[in-house]
Amino acid sequence: MTDRYAVGVDFGSESGRAVIVRTHDGTIVGEAVTPYAHAVMDHHLPTGERLGHAWALQHPQDYLDVLQQAVPAALNASGVHPDQVIGLGIDFTACTMLPTRADGTPLCFLPEYARRPHAWVKLWKHHAAQPQADRINALAETRGEPWLARYGGKQSSEWFFAKALQILEEDPSTYAASDRLLEAADWVVWQLTGVETRNACTAGYKAIHQDGQFPTTDFFAALHPDFADIVQTRMSITLAPLGAQAGTLTAQAATWTGLNPGTPVAVANVDAHVAVPAAGVTEPGRMVAIMGTSTCHMLLGEHLRDVPGMCGVVPDGIIPGLYGYEAGQSGVGDLFAWFVKHGVPPEYHEQARREGLSLHALLEREAATQHPGAHGLIALDWLNGNRSVLVDAHLSGLILGLTLHTRAPDIYRALIEATAYGTRLIIETFEASGVPVHELVIAGGLKRNRLLMQIYADVTGRPLSLLDVEQGPALGSAMHAAVAGGAHPDIFAAARAMGKVQTRAYTPIPEHQRVYDRLYAEYRTLHDHFGRGANDVMHRLLALKEAAMPGADTLERAVAEVSA
Amino acid sequence: MTDRYAVGVDFGSESGRAVIVRTHDGTIVGEAVTPYAHAVMDHHLPTGERLGHAWALQHPQDYLDVLQQAVPAALNASGVHPDQVIGLGIDFTACTMLPTRADGTPLCFLPEYARRPHAWVKLWKHHAAQPQADRINALAETRGEPWLARYGGKQSSEWFFAKALQILEEDPSTYAASDRLLEAADWVVWQLTGVETRNACTAGYKAIHQDGQFPTTDFFAALHPDFADIVQTRMSITLAPLGAQAGTLTAQAATWTGLNPGTPVAVANVDAHVAVPAAGVTEPGRMVAIMGTSTCHMLLGEHLRDVPGMCGVVPDGIIPGLYGYEAGQSGVGDLFAWFVKHGVPPEYHEQARREGLSLHALLEREAATQHPGAHGLIALDWLNGNRSVLVDAHLSGLILGLTLHTRAPDIYRALIEATAYGTRLIIETFEASGVPVHELVIAGGLKRNRLLMQIYADVTGRPLSLLDVEQGPALGSAMHAAVAGGAHPDIFAAARAMGKVQTRAYTPIPEHQRVYDRLYAEYRTLHDHFGRGANDVMHRLLALKEAAMPGADTLERAVAEVSA
Repeated sequence: MTDRYAVGVDFGSESGRAVIVRTHDGTIVGEAVTPYAHAVMDHHLPTGERLGHAWALQHPQDYLDVLQQAVPAALNASGVHPDQVIGLGIDFTACTMLPTRADGTPLCFLPEYARRPHAWVKLWKHHAAQPQADRINALAETRGEPWLARYGGKQSSEWFFAKALQILEEDPSTYAASDRLLEAADWVVWQLTGVETRNACTAGYKAIHQDGQFPTTDFFAALHPDFADIVQTRMSITLAPLGAQAGTLTAQAATWTGLNPGTPVAVANVDAHVAVPAAGVTEPGRMVAIMGTSTCHMLLGEHLRDVPGMCGVVPDGIIPGLYGYEAGQSGVGDLFAWFVKHGVPPEYHEQARREGLSLHALLEREAATQHPGAHGLIALDWLNGNRSVLVDAHLSGLILGLTLHTRAPDIYRALIEATAYGTRLIIETFEASGVPVHELVIAGGLKRNRLLMQIYADVTGRPLSLLDVEQGPALGSAMHAAVAGGAHPDIFAAARAMGKVQTRAYTPIPEHQRVYDRLYAEYRTLHDHFGRGANDVMHRLLALKEAAMPGADTLERAVAEVSA
Repeated sequence: MTDRYAVGVDFGSESGRAVIVRTHDGTIVGEAVTPYAHAVMDHHLPTGERLGHAWALQHPQDYLDVLQQAVPAALNASGVHPDQVIGLGIDFTACTMLPTRADGTPLCFLPEYARRPHAWVKLWKHHAAQPQADRINALAETRGEPWLARYGGKQSSEWFFAKALQILEEDPSTYAASDRLLEAADWVVWQLTGVETRNACTAGYKAIHQDGQFPTTDFFAALHPDFADIVQTRMSITLAPLGAQAGTLTAQAATWTGLNPGTPVAVANVDAHVAVPAAGVTEPGRMVAIMGTSTCHMLLGEHLRDVPGMCGVVPDGIIPGLYGYEAGQSGVGDLFAWFVKHGVPPEYHEQARREGLSLHALLEREAATQHPGAHGLIALDWLNGNRSVLVDAHLSGLILGLTLHTRAPDIYRALIEATAYGTRLIIETFEASGVPVHELVIAGGLKRNRLLMQIYADVTGRPLSLLDVEQGPALGSAMHAAVAGGAHPDIFAAARAMGKVQTRAYTPIPEHQRVYDRLYAEYRTLHDHFGRGANDVMHRLLALKEAAMPGADTLERAVAEVSA
């Protein structure tokens, strides 16, 4: 039998990556990356218009370029014939959304809207819709909306309706001209297949689709009268389950990609989520942690539980037939990068240079010589706020136990440990809510840091497996494509055949666990003290800081607001 | 009338400094410094014997060298004739003590004792008598000794009886050979005059002399049977009040110093204490803060009050007729030095080099551009433990409010502010106990840091005056010499005539005060939470740290001890 192949395309924040994967064993036989020509537009539009603070836009043409460049390049590199390709699947950052006409044309492609910022793609990290998110949260709380608990009690400014409401309120005519508001993921599938779909995964995690429905018309009306009918007018299409076939390649898309017309295309998905089957995880109890600048935790459960402080829970949201839970830590790799850049004296820089090491590698080596507890420090890992389980962006970091003998490797290790305690607290919160976690499967760049991995095993008391390829999301998309194309009956079979995991790469060291159990107890006490209202000093310091900024409101007013 | 002069000699930790001072206006007309040839002996004796952990010894010959070199050099530099010198006074670090024969010969000068560490001078920062100090404290508490409250509830390992008990317990034959145990200050005066005196100041602050007596025989006996008679056998001499004349220069001492035989010599004193009249302070309400690596606070009061956490209160201990209160912060300049050496990334080092600034000066300049509160940080200044008011060497430092935007000047400023909050807390503790503080008078090297001075004024809400010479203690000693020599009737008159103070060099800025009042409230909450038992995490971290040290007891035992 001739080998069959699936194509996976992973649309990241700065580039798109295509892989060609053999469906019977998951081997990646070809790969190519296309950087986005316009990258992240956070200062001005291509036409020169300046953007406001915290904006982050993208250009839809960049996504089409990936289809026209990375896919054929990967195919070419693989030597695979288009006849051997049985399906294509994509994953995307989320919520990354845009307004289009009824035929799928992005408003920003129309000359009359090209100069309007709100006509463009809002990237996931567009944070300028915070006022809208705040109002959505306040309203949902006042009305006691049942769905709020499914998102840990808070909607993010990154999500769908906050962004949509910002368009309506700041540029009503662009909003009025939009026939659709949709995820860029679904838009790309539309371009590939000519068929409009809306994937259930992002609808659930980013657009408050719960128990078969979006929020009610009167909820939206209470936000803005013209927002009442957003679902009916701009989102009314049946949701497509993940793993299903969205359609097949159009003739035009076939010329873009070099694949055959009629090749099956899977329903779009979220980048972090497709990494779960890529790591061979299709069952409850094994938490996948994608660890980079921040960490995203994904976990499957058999039952719907309210877990405090998670990012969202969606039935069939990650793997069909299971509840998909998502949680997150808003600062992880970012913390280590901050410390390495801003807290390490010259002697370590010089030593690293002498030895031809990165500063990270040197600090890791120095910190690794210590016994747990030897630095006498404990930190709270909130330098970028706290997502799970406190859902409070206004918290800040803490380091305790400093002495005149404290040195840079001590703090580096303490920061690593703090993020591990944060992960353990998320795990324990899941377990206390009835969602068990037996094992961690690590994806993302931080899995290469051996000290960090061992500390995570020791702190959490769980074995660590590793996603064994660098292209986890693209592999996961190819797996969904393999299912859509019929190479495997379902994602479970695809994950068994194609998943790439190095099992139990790290296991807890009992003597370390004993010390870390004590330190974690200290972390938990500090976490609750500063994070759950016993001492709101972090909020008050933030208010004082904002009051001290040039152009800030008067001190008295800002502090009064926080105290209110 | 010919001008008259007094000689002041300040014996520091590394060197001795002599000044020649005009008695009618305090002008310093000559000065010389002699570094101690043996400096601080903390690794081995001159004969090569190794010393234990936390030992710090000195060589008595180095003190004699100061008399033979610095004094004649200063006199020579001044052009003053010995006939014009009406007195000599000295001050010393304390408690710096040694064992001698009945004739004053240091045991370490005798060949049979030269190889015994306990025969040498124990410098103030010899910390190896901690076990003895712990037992003195435990016993005093059990017995309810009335003097314990006069020392903030705790005797330091640096003080007299802890050091003496260490000699007895670790080297009984050296103890047995000692006819006297005395302060080096008193020993130097003995060498100058041939008269044995014991100054009331160190007896009060360092040797538990309260209400006219040392601790009782049965107290000492309970520590060790052979310790029962220490006062009767080794310290029995009437205490000499400060400002009094101890004797006059012997012929031999006259040849050493180049002064006339018969020149009056004042009773010895403590370095920090003589800085008080040097700054023109002889009345209640003006707190003198000697700010260097640590800070020593001295305050005069009309009444005896129990002030929690002070270092000691002694009637006539600083100025006759008033209660002399002493408090302290165990890490101040040390904190800034630690941060500058271990927490500042290369870019600031390079910029400082480019601009020809010290790193301290650059960070001070950058931090000075901020408004109070703008960095969003608050710190606890306990990186070297806390002396006043918590008297707990096992506390450690904390920084709270860190974000990914925190930079080195932010932390530098936060550390400065933390020490200022610590000073304010000491001031408020004095005031709450009925000892008012209207003004701060700053001595010591840190008075040159303008940002720090302004922050202290803003945080404490008090005007700051500055001791206006660099040789404060030596000037103060010369003032006591001027009194002993009859140039002034008392220290009050001497301080009026000879004191050097720049009054109200800094005054609080009201807008800053308003912000700092809020931040101080946060500091106080954290201070009490971590310092008064609500969360003893710092103690537990220290126990874990010590357990993790190579050669430590097992973890379980160490933690059990701290928990007990």
